[in-house]
Order: sequence, then structure tokens, then C-alpha cells
Amino acid sequence: MIDHRTLRVALLGAGSVGSQVARLLLEHGDDLAERSGASLELSGILVRDLDAPRDVELPRELLTTDAENLIVGADIVIELMGGIEPARTHILTALNSGADVVTGNKALLAAHGAEIFDAADQVGASVSYEAAVAGAIPIIRPLKDSLAGDRIVRIFGIVNGSTNFILDKMDREGLSAEEAQRIATDLGYLEADPTLDLEGYDAAQKAAILASLAFHTEVAMEHVHREGIESITADMIEGARRAGFVIKLLAVCERLPGADGEDESISVRVYPALISRDHPLATVHGGNNAVFVEAEAAGPLMFYGAGAGGVQTASAVLGDVVSAARRHIAGGVGVGESARQSLPTAEIGRITTRYQITLEVSDEQGVLATIAGILNDGGVSAATVEQTVDDEGTARIVIGTHRAREQALSDTVARLAQSDVVERVASVLRVEGE
Amino acid sequence: MIDHRTLRVALLGAGSVGSQVARLLLEHGDDLAERSGASLELSGILVRDLDAPRDVELPRELLTTDAENLIVGADIVIELMGGIEPARTHILTALNSGADVVTGNKALLAAHGAEIFDAADQVGASVSYEAAVAGAIPIIRPLKDSLAGDRIVRIFGIVNGSTNFILDKMDREGLSAEEAQRIATDLGYLEADPTLDLEGYDAAQKAAILASLAFHTEVAMEHVHREGIESITADMIEGARRAGFVIKLLAVCERLPGADGEDESISVRVYPALISRDHPLATVHGGNNAVFVEAEAAGPLMFYGAGAGGVQTASAVLGDVVSAARRHIAGGVGVGESARQSLPTAEIGRITTRYQITLEVSDEQGVLATIAGILNDGGVSAATVEQTVDDEGTARIVIGTHRAREQALSDTVARLAQSDVVERVASVLRVEGE
Repeated sequence: MIDHRTLRVALLGAGSVGSQVARLLLEHGDDLAERSGASLELSGILVRDLDAPRDVELPRELLTTDAENLIVGADIVIELMGGIEPARTHILTALNSGADVVTGNKALLAAHGAEIFDAADQVGASVSYEAAVAGAIPIIRPLKDSLAGDRIVRIFGIVNGSTNFILDKMDREGLSAEEAQRIATDLGYLEADPTLDLEGYDAAQKAAILASLAFHTEVAMEHVHREGIESITADMIEGARRAGFVIKLLAVCERLPGADGEDESISVRVYPALISRDHPLATVHGGNNAVFVEAEAAGPLMFYGAGAGGVQTASAVLGDVVSAARRHIAGGVGVGESARQSLPTAEIGRITTRYQITLEVSDEQGVLATIAGILNDGGVSAATVEQTVDDEGTARIVIGTHRAREQALSDTVARLAQSDVVERVASVLRVEGE
Repeated sequence: MIDHRTLRVALLGAGSVGSQVARLLLEHGDDLAERSGASLELSGILVRDLDAPRDVELPRELLTTDAENLIVGADIVIELMGGIEPARTHILTALNSGADVVTGNKALLAAHGAEIFDAADQVGASVSYEAAVAGAIPIIRPLKDSLAGDRIVRIFGIVNGSTNFILDKMDREGLSAEEAQRIATDLGYLEADPTLDLEGYDAAQKAAILASLAFHTEVAMEHVHREGIESITADMIEGARRAGFVIKLLAVCERLPGADGEDESISVRVYPALISRDHPLATVHGGNNAVFVEAEAAGPLMFYGAGAGGVQTASAVLGDVVSAARRHIAGGVGVGESARQSLPTAEIGRITTRYQITLEVSDEQGVLATIAGILNDGGVSAATVEQTVDDEGTARIVIGTHRAREQALSDTVARLAQSDVVERVASVLRVEGE
């Protein structure tokens, strides 16, 4: 069944993922040819510096700094450079010269996905990006193909390995945030500039990509509500543990039904949240990722695996390359990414959620009554209230609310913060996965 | 982007899955058209009895008993009749008349997969079967496409919901096997003839399909080692619990490297096994399924969700229908299932595994020494040995072995059974997931 055609594959970028993709393309050529139906010839590797040290030794004669020549001669272009430019220009050049594109560039897709998918549709080429979300875990293809006949209601999960590693270290070893971050940096889980991970930008980019695909709608990064893990302390993790929870940085993409004069909309958000220790997401340790998908017919599904890593992510890239090769030979093009609805993205205030609010309060009579009054005025009802006084004499009240509108909850927290009986709002966390 | 073509979809069978597929095709036509790139017209539903009662009310004018006419006029044929004939003949007719086929028929694929895939390749049509394994869970497509550039080493998981429901009931509620089976029957988890589930035939069929796909090789049902849950008692479940394990019916598909004059081969097997309570598979409750896939580059991945159910499985069928429609319009056909290696399937004796052996022994001096001698002679070393005497004076020895060849382990158990000091081999279970 092997077609004796040869497809020319251009690789842009030779970092930790790119160098593994090159190695696997060179070492597993026969297997890949059998799966693809054509020989895949690595025609060149675009690098910035021909002499830079690399994770994997690559044939010198394949390295080039001439992007234009490499791209224009290719049938399949793999973009693993990261960043917006020149990646965006290279991908558009590739599509316009008839190549199929495989990319792992979440920042680019989150910012310019619509432009790239439109360009692909116009020329009848494909853009695949399994590697852009949750590393090795097949999640894009299940959403795009396996669930194509279903209606996705909700996606939520752990899509950033670095922050999961840090929160997991803090939870399982009782480390401070600083200690856990230092270990994550030493082990290569965090970049020199860790802001993208710690402040939730990386997770927000992935959430935008997942929501766009799941709800067939464009999601702009500025509509993704984003909170990082900067404010999570060892005390908060310990408090969560005592209450039977673990804190995870979650990406949540959700369909909000239209009601009360509001249109159907979606909510896309990233924040640290409390998850019950009984929930499967609570058992996702280290740098792993896991994504729950809830569809109307299929019910809840979970996908779990390595969220990062050069060779793991290379597996996802090669799966896309084989599919692109099959398509390239078959010649046909299916319905593209541009078959879109345009659901509005709701403000965070419109979601309903549950809060766990920890207050430091003055240790005097009537405190609880005052707080209960503020909750009541805000239309927020408490499911659980726990009052404690620690060894240092600090009185705390932990309130677990019933489900309510985010707006009512956050307004109520603001009013609690202003109350005379509240000395400090120690933490506010949402509860997810119930 | 909607192509105004209409594709005619024929549905064979209107049981619990088929009737849900019909409902979703009729109710979600617009969504499916947008995802497919063409309108999907349900052209007819093949039933045995036009007047039989059904889970879902179906338009009377779509029902037919004329298979030939229905199939020959269709672009896509969905086969959800089950069983070998006439399903096999109908699928071959459909392929030969140019239709793409979607099926959920695991028994047919396990017995005649090669014939069907060859027929599809010859005419350039596709056969999709996501619904045949693990219900709603996308597992076929990730294996076939997402991991196409990787090398799968091992698959293991829970692929039969009925037996998982029974074992879970026994484990969590302390029920006897008979009680748990009665509840499973009452709730519709077990068929009137429960043999297919209880004796592991259903799981073995799914294992054969998964192994064929993962290792690109034909796996005949008679080469699948199969043990069911008939022999699992409440005592064994309780013993497993005390030792920190849970008993699950596992399907295991594994690549065995060639060594010592043996060729590379594969092992495909189904048996109840001990899984540590810390393992994610231990948390798969009720009728759910979960499948671990270990690939060389990607590392371990897990897929979890509903293993059965009419509407859940219908989601998987419709995903395949949308893909078939996209392909049908694009016109191209990729590399088919027949791109195959022919790895031999190894006898069960060739695998390496760990045993937990529970012996009832005579309560006299020297028993342990005799047993240790038998283990030693058999080349089996013990990792743990625990000796207990219960309230009724029965002395038991529980031996957890180190990893060894299955052949050495089973020979040793046979010798233990014949020993004068052993009164009864109470249970022998393999330990998996370590």
C-alpha cells in the first residue's frame, strides 16, 4: 500500500521539541512512511544559529537560516519556533505555497488563529496543532473529530504543567511557594521569565484554543478571565487540605445558556480553584496535564498524560504530520476551522460558582451575625461556616457558599472586606469539579 | 463553507445505540451539516420488525426491512445490528457499492476485521469503528491518528463496563458475586445471557481490536488469552482490599521484545488482576471504562469515560459519521488498515508478570520452608510472604512474587497445589499497573 511518493517536510525550529521531531523523522522513517502512505523527507531545519548547541545532534547539512527557500519547496511545514513573528509570516507563506502546516505555537494560535485558519481554508490546506495544548495528550483531535457529532458543554482541566508541578510540591511536601518555584526552575519546569506560567498566560492561551474549537467560535485572549498562582500561599494550600481539597490551576471553558434576556454565551477562564481530593483531577501530580470534556451525548470524558517535554510533545507533532501527509496524498480537503458560530464571551460576573472565603475577624461577640447579614444582603447563602481561633489568637471564619452568580459573590466579598468586624480577607477561592 | 451536497445515510439497526443515533441525526441536522460540510439525510433505518417497541420514537416512514435497497442507495452506512451475519454481508455490500461504513460491531471486527478492511481498501472506502471499543471514549482515533507517528508499547485498561460494575459493587458494598450480578442484571448492565461479559469474551474482542490497531497486526480471537470474573469471590476482593489492591478485569495488549532466540511478538490477554488502590484505574467506578496507552515518545496517556450506554455510544458513532462525510466529500482516501505488520501473538507463558498466590496450608512446622523450597525450585522469588490463621483455625499463606515468566509462575503454582502441606490454592491473581 506504500505510495512511492515522497513528501518534503520542512522543520522550523530546533529547540527541545523540534530537535526530537527531527530525530524521530530521521530514525523512524520506515514506520512513518507505512503510516503515511508516502516517504517523509526532512528537507531542512530552520535555525537562528547554525552552531548553537542542541539537545539532539542533527545532521549539519540539514540546518539552514534561509527560511524562504526551505518553506517554498516543502509539502508539509512544521513550525516549532514559538512566538508571534516570524512564525506567523512563515506559516502564511507555507499555506500560500500549498503546504500543509503543523504547529505547536499556542501563543500564535491564541492571538492570530482566525487569520491562519482563514488563510488555510482559502487555499485548501490544513493547519494542525495537537502539540499546542496539553503536550502529548490527544485532545485537539478528539474535540475536532471524535466529538464532531456531539455538543460540548464544558471543558475543564489542568493544562499548565509548571504550575501544577509547583502546586503539587507545595501540597505534597509542604513547601513554600518560593521553595517550590526554585525547584521547578532548577528542573527546567519554569523559564527564566516565569511570568507566562505563574500568571496564567500560558493556560489562558490554551483555554482560548480549546474554547474556540469546542464552541466553534472565536475567542480573543482579552476575553479570557485570567488569575495566576502568584497569590497562593502554603497556608492556603494547608487550609484547603484540612477541608478535603487541593488547589489546582484550572482552565474552564463553558457554555452559558441564554436566559433572562441574556444571549447564549461562553465563559473562558483560568484561575486557581479548590478541587475535592476525591476528584480525578486531584490525583494529577507533577508536570502532568488532564482535561475533562463534558458533551451532551458522550457525558464526561477525561484525557490524561504528559503536559510538556520535548519527546512527549514530539509525539503529538508527528501524529499531525502523518495525518497531514495522508491528506496531502489524498488531495481532498474537508470542512475547515472557519465553519464558525460567533458566541459572545461572557464577563466573569455572569458565571455561577461556589466560593470558599477565609476571613480573619476580630474576636468579639456579634461577628458572625454581622457577616451573616452581609451575605444575606448580597444574596449569597452559606453552605458551611467554620470559626476557629489559632494559637496566636487570630480568629478566622471560613465560609463555603452555595452556588451563586460570580458578580454577587465578588460584590459580597468586597463588602465583607469593608466591614468593621473583618480584619483581613485571607483568601477567596472558587470550588470546581462538583 | 457549507457544501450544498446531501449525503444519504443508511442506518442498520434501531436498538439502544441505533435509535439514539437516529434521534441525533434528525434533531441535530444543522450542526452536523456545519461540521461535515454537507447535509446528512437519514435515508432509512433497517429493522427486523416494523412494529417492535423502541427506546426512541422514530418516524415510521424511515423504517424498512429491505436491506438491499437501503444500502445500495447510501453514501454512508451505519451498522449497529451486532452479531456476525447479516451484518458482515451488509457491510461488504455497502463497501462494494461505494459507501463509507461506520460500525460499532466489536464481535464482527474481532472475527472478520481483516476481510472488511481489505474490502474497504480495494474500493477506496473507509470503515470507522470508534463505538466498538469503550463506548463514548475516543480511543480508536487517538490510536490510529494521534499516535500514528509514535510507537505504542502497551495498552491496558478496563474495557467492559458490566464486569467493572459488578467488581466495583463487590468492592465498595461488600456484596457477593451473586448479589452484584443480580443488581447488574436489574439495571440492564448484563444481558439475559451474561456469558459474553462475565467470561471475558466481550473484553477479549475489544482487546483484539485495540491490539490489531496499536501493533498494525492481525490478532485472531483464539490467540487472545481470556479469563473472566466467574471465579472472583467476595473473599478474594476483601483479601485484595486488605493488601491495598482492588480487583479489575483488565485487557492488556503488549509488545514483547525479541530476545534469546525468540522473535518480537505481542501478547493480548484479558484477566482479573490486582491493581494498587493508588493507581488511577482503581478509581474507575460503576460502568465506566478507562484505557491506558503507553507509547515510546508520548509516555503514558489515559482515556476515561462512559463505556456503554445508548446515547453515549451514539456520540462516538456520530463523530465517525461526520468524519466519513468529510472524507466522502473530499473524495480522497488515505492509507488503509491493511498497512500491516504480522507480529506473532505469544503464548501467555511468555509474558512476565507478578503473582499474588493465596494458599490454605496445614498448620504445622516446616510449612513455610517447604513452600519456599518449591518457589526456589521453580525459579520464582517471593517479594512478600504473609502467614495468617483466621478465627476458624485456617492457616493461610499469601505470597507476592517478584516479576517472573508466566510459565515459571504457573508451573510453580501447579507444584504448590500438589504439595502435601498445601490444602487448597485459594486464589492466584496477577498484579498489574506497577
